[in-house]
Amino acid sequence: MKIGILGYGNLGKGVESAVRQNPDMELTCILTRRDPASVKPVTEGVKVYSVNDIEKFKDEIDVLVICGGSATDLPKQTPEYAKYFNVIDSFDTHARIPEHFANVDAAAKESGHTALISCGWDPGMFSLMRLYGSCVLPEGNDYTFWGKGVSQGHSDAIRRVEGVKNGKQYTIPVDAALEAVRSGQNPELTTREKHTRECFVVAEEGADLAKIESEIKNMPNYFADYDTTVHFISQEEFDANHSEIPHGGFVFRTGVTGFNKEHKHVIEYRLNLDSNPEFTSSVILAFARAVNRLAKEGQTGCKTVFDIAPAYLSPLSGDELRAHML
Amino acid sequence: MKIGILGYGNLGKGVESAVRQNPDMELTCILTRRDPASVKPVTEGVKVYSVNDIEKFKDEIDVLVICGGSATDLPKQTPEYAKYFNVIDSFDTHARIPEHFANVDAAAKESGHTALISCGWDPGMFSLMRLYGSCVLPEGNDYTFWGKGVSQGHSDAIRRVEGVKNGKQYTIPVDAALEAVRSGQNPELTTREKHTRECFVVAEEGADLAKIESEIKNMPNYFADYDTTVHFISQEEFDANHSEIPHGGFVFRTGVTGFNKEHKHVIEYRLNLDSNPEFTSSVILAFARAVNRLAKEGQTGCKTVFDIAPAYLSPLSGDELRAHML
Repeated sequence: MKIGILGYGNLGKGVESAVRQNPDMELTCILTRRDPASVKPVTEGVKVYSVNDIEKFKDEIDVLVICGGSATDLPKQTPEYAKYFNVIDSFDTHARIPEHFANVDAAAKESGHTALISCGWDPGMFSLMRLYGSCVLPEGNDYTFWGKGVSQGHSDAIRRVEGVKNGKQYTIPVDAALEAVRSGQNPELTTREKHTRECFVVAEEGADLAKIESEIKNMPNYFADYDTTVHFISQEEFDANHSEIPHGGFVFRTGVTGFNKEHKHVIEYRLNLDSNPEFTSSVILAFARAVNRLAKEGQTGCKTVFDIAPAYLSPLSGDELRAHML
Repeated sequence: MKIGILGYGNLGKGVESAVRQNPDMELTCILTRRDPASVKPVTEGVKVYSVNDIEKFKDEIDVLVICGGSATDLPKQTPEYAKYFNVIDSFDTHARIPEHFANVDAAAKESGHTALISCGWDPGMFSLMRLYGSCVLPEGNDYTFWGKGVSQGHSDAIRRVEGVKNGKQYTIPVDAALEAVRSGQNPELTTREKHTRECFVVAEEGADLAKIESEIKNMPNYFADYDTTVHFISQEEFDANHSEIPHGGFVFRTGVTGFNKEHKHVIEYRLNLDSNPEFTSSVILAFARAVNRLAKEGQTGCKTVFDIAPAYLSPLSGDELRAHML
């Protein structure tokens, strides 16, 4: 199947890399809003074109992976390009998913294409775990923890503080909270009890470090509700130890069964990821395979991970899956 | 939706109990091979009938949950009753799944019913995790560990040893092996390195304990390849501490991504279950909901958990799922 990439940032590069790990896929081209000559793909021979020429490729791409940002890019791009392509995106503004779904669904249905939105790990694999968990243990509680990993939004917020040259923020789940959930205690946890935030900051020369630290720790929405640690480090240390984008987290479902609700059960799903964008890209490509199959079956409109029978994700046949994986 | 139960052992009781936790389900009747008068359901008003009268109920049950054993019951029962009902079972003899699938598929297609086999947690939820893991990390390794939990087959084997009055066997995953996998070392593990076996035995009066212990520890297939511990206890202690049927385990997928395979990822799914049959029953009922929906859509034949879009498991609508769980 032929994959197109729209947008060559961290996610686009992750998709390019993941295509090489899926023998039934090939990368047709990369489309960009930048000057195509300025984009240098890692894969030899892959062509880069301007997004302005995108319609020319409508018969050459089975699934277009849209690698824009959720704030402003995807709400426009995914419905727009669903007019010409089967599309998949990683839209992750949870509160706006219903609206985005409706827009993409209308566009895809009108043009007879298949779309899948909000793919990755949260939303994505974590959503699947929340759904499976709530269905198999209808009487119970959900817990989602994130980290240890880099929060892009919180790192951006640090970098906007005056006197900060560079910064990175790690979200860390609190061990005691994880243990309380894991042991089936069904705790009610405050924001502060669930996660801590650790910041690594490169300050500009002569900056007031105490002021920076206070400003970060008291920043509303981002840090004020958390126990936050701020470490000032050199640019060299920053480059050496904080250039990667790890992430991960936990989804728990705890519940009871039995005529007297006497039996407790704990389901735990954990991700430990060296590279957030590469793992997200890998999930996206598995679901792109499903999008391609649904499109061939004529199942048009917008889907989410909830609508995909797991067998559609695999290059193996039903016989092979039943024989080796069931 | 109307649920029928065929077979009122641990699993059948688990289904009876789980029906009460799903407001969109009701228990129509219990069917048994025993004298119906000898079977006393916990739920008031539920009728018990002889399996010989089962055909009378063919228009009164939406999904029949077949709660027989995998060795001899299910290979006959599931294809037989797929002639009259939409059916679901927990067939767990992994090596014979393709054959069972083919038999049930033929029967269900001929009669125009929908069937789902091998539902529960392994096969079942663990199979799903193996499938999702291999699709999102195509270059990697799978690891499945079982326990801590009661193995029915190994407990039965203990009870067949001369001089043993009662016995229970717990399968326990080895912590060092779990840690090695969790840390992304991709270890190659022998049978002995993955699990230990702990046995609690009530001996008959005057029995030769050393002989019993040696016979258990050296039993081929069951214990000889494992580090096995045997504890002799009184019937009172057995009744007090070993009357439950807990189980659980771990599915790991570890893999790499990146142009130079430089990033490691670890996916871990863990179950910690106070009651193996009750959790299995709860999974079965979620998939019974999907069977009922597929049947209404006219999708006949045999399915497995791989063929079920997760949204079909939930009583919530697509809009609700997207708004609250994605």
